[in-house]
Amino acid sequence: MQKALLVFQSDFGLVDGAVSAMHGVANTVDDSIKIHDLTHDIPPYSIWEASYRLFQTIEYWPKGTVFVSVVDPGVGSSRRSVVAETVGGQYIVTPDNGTLTHIKKYVGFKEVREIDETKHRREDTEHSYTFHGRDVYANIGAKLASGNISFEQVGSTVDLALTVELEVGKVEKGQNYVKGAIDILDVRFGSLWTNIPRDVFVGVGFKHGDSVEVAIRNGSTMVYNNRITYGKSFADVYASEQIIYVNSVYNMAIAINQGNFARAYNIGTGRHWQIEFRRV
Amino acid sequence: MQKALLVFQSDFGLVDGAVSAMHGVANTVDDSIKIHDLTHDIPPYSIWEASYRLFQTIEYWPKGTVFVSVVDPGVGSSRRSVVAETVGGQYIVTPDNGTLTHIKKYVGFKEVREIDETKHRREDTEHSYTFHGRDVYANIGAKLASGNISFEQVGSTVDLALTVELEVGKVEKGQNYVKGAIDILDVRFGSLWTNIPRDVFVGVGFKHGDSVEVAIRNGSTMVYNNRITYGKSFADVYASEQIIYVNSVYNMAIAINQGNFARAYNIGTGRHWQIEFRRV
Amino acid sequence: MQKALLVFQSDFGLVDGAVSAMHGVANTVDDSIKIHDLTHDIPPYSIWEASYRLFQTIEYWPKGTVFVSVVDPGVGSSRRSVVAETVGGQYIVTPDNGTLTHIKKYVGFKEVREIDETKHRREDTEHSYTFHGRDVYANIGAKLASGNISFEQVGSTVDLALTVELEVGKVEKGQNYVKGAIDILDVRFGSLWTNIPRDVFVGVGFKHGDSVEVAIRNGSTMVYNNRITYGKSFADVYASEQIIYVNSVYNMAIAINQGNFARAYNIGTGRHWQIEFRRV
Repeated sequence: MQKALLVFQSDFGLVDGAVSAMHGVANTVDDSIKIHDLTHDIPPYSIWEASYRLFQTIEYWPKGTVFVSVVDPGVGSSRRSVVAETVGGQYIVTPDNGTLTHIKKYVGFKEVREIDETKHRREDTEHSYTFHGRDVYANIGAKLASGNISFEQVGSTVDLALTVELEVGKVEKGQNYVKGAIDILDVRFGSLWTNIPRDVFVGVGFKHGDSVEVAIRNGSTMVYNNRITYGKSFADVYASEQIIYVNSVYNMAIAINQGNFARAYNIGTGRHWQIEFRRV
Repeated sequence: MQKALLVFQSDFGLVDGAVSAMHGVANTVDDSIKIHDLTHDIPPYSIWEASYRLFQTIEYWPKGTVFVSVVDPGVGSSRRSVVAETVGGQYIVTPDNGTLTHIKKYVGFKEVREIDETKHRREDTEHSYTFHGRDVYANIGAKLASGNISFEQVGSTVDLALTVELEVGKVEKGQNYVKGAIDILDVRFGSLWTNIPRDVFVGVGFKHGDSVEVAIRNGSTMVYNNRITYGKSFADVYASEQIIYVNSVYNMAIAINQGNFARAYNIGTGRHWQIEFRRV
Repeated sequence: MQKALLVFQSDFGLVDGAVSAMHGVANTVDDSIKIHDLTHDIPPYSIWEASYRLFQTIEYWPKGTVFVSVVDPGVGSSRRSVVAETVGGQYIVTPDNGTLTHIKKYVGFKEVREIDETKHRREDTEHSYTFHGRDVYANIGAKLASGNISFEQVGSTVDLALTVELEVGKVEKGQNYVKGAIDILDVRFGSLWTNIPRDVFVGVGFKHGDSVEVAIRNGSTMVYNNRITYGKSFADVYASEQIIYVNSVYNMAIAINQGNFARAYNIGTGRHWQIEFRRV
């Protein structure tokens, strides 16, 4: 039988043995499954970023792939543990703490099931209260990927409307402008990824080559206000020039070509970081 | 024949090609073995941390797994290179420089064999004096994992009593207190991992929910002194509250829920970092 | 049919989903190929370092291995995308922007072919202008590794003389000295890797144990000037002592045993960082 791929994500970092312990548990379940990683550098406790990175990535993986995401500040509390099946036939094993926000909103679920921990914990770990990533999630993820259990055997279904969702920033469009929030950074290159879809932006009338007025506010404080070219790709501007472009999830983004926009202007992320594009 | 898993650990970091060269050598021996990593972010030259991370992780991997650990400040000296077989039937390939300290003390060996470099070096590398990780350890680790050689073919046995051990901090228990050392950090979250076993701690009479007096000293200097709740899991305290808990190797640990204890109080690790838990 | 290994390198870092998206694309092409990584921590936009890390690493991987290197500041411009076959029968998929410099100079190519993007892009990505790593390079790398396409099917051949090369620092040898440049750092340990081959250095008459006069200049500014022992391995000097040694690509290097030479003297890399070894 064809086995599914197993892909891990967490906020554990790679400096100690925590991620390797999860890989080891999965290999102990079945050492013929293929194990990969999304990232383990989610900022500690950032459920928002865990949700976003899943959204950004899962579409590039084959149907059937099992993702295990462990960003779990509420470990040991009564928060549910679930497995979600997406409309595309992929599986996400995670605490139900908001990690499913973006997938639910932008991809959609077929079904969500609550993990029955009495059946799917590693043996003899009933007294372990803080290592669910290793003792529950890695274990059931590997069982699913290997085909040891079916999705139905995970546990009973959860009302889709009841899965936990984080609040998502609003997008507001006028005749000459569109406003939204800075969702996240392309960390390595310091680019700002907004929540404004390409379609909405184009609907305002912006065209490649246009000079666009950009205002960035942190709450009520103006942090940046200047004009930037809307380009097709970084090659459309000089090195060190700023550019508005479409990112890999088809939202509007801003960068400094070969520089770091976020660091240049000390820009952060979250719903209070507002960005506005206005026609000149 | 079923091949064993091969798991690498080092202080090489992942920023250049050194780890990939080891993976390449292993794949050149046999590209059907499955290769994983424990961590490559052991602080440069920290034999202690290499020893600890092995101890923390290997139990989650299947029987037969071959671990290759390369933290080797004495490369090129006359320090022995060995392969240790644990009582659980796993293998550790390493310089005999103290990297086996925790496994020897807390897990135990069946047998240790000295690597016969005349047989198990990569071909034509006799003149390479500083890349044993790639030329010796990765090579013999892959041979063992693939079944090309048996454990007996590694070389002659080493008297178990003679393998190098680092000094381990003492634990002292009184009627109302227990004292130990801060062994290591859960780096990402800044939690302190002590060398005080849960059993000894509970033996003093501490119970879940107790407020415990905690004193931390760096040598003779008091660095921290306050009361902290002994909890079952992080969910027992508020975000930003401190907690005493049992870590994944069943020793006592201290954290700030969703914060970073080590950074908050500038706390380090080693035998001179003493911690005391006292009944109120 | 035996499938080739697929090894990725980039400047994407591991903190978001970009590398995982490439792995996912490759698994979608064929989830039976084995995927590894060289490094993803190439400094952003550093074509030089991408070129060097390939040179440093590929010889340790089996014949037939397919490397995908994505450091691509010119993405979206008219720079060519190519696959190079080395004289040793390995393949490198990369933008033709200088990434092939070291391999071309020190290893050599059999043939280079330009990627025909009309055939080898992922479906429905014609409008994606900035994610060639995922949409073109990962895709064709996986096709090659899996045997879905032959090297000839990549596209038409490119005149070897026309592939882009970065300028490489010169080495100058006199009767009592040799001069060169600091090519790169062994980042983790802060060692300096020069472009001076062991053979040329030995040709000046230096022998193991010699005390060698070393001068390091940044442009015309003298940054370091002292005597250092030429050792066989780090074990030849005390901890904290400096040493001249032969690095893993058989060039001369300088380190502080268990310290960090680059950080100690604020030393950087590039052709303007000149180093001279002189007989005392």
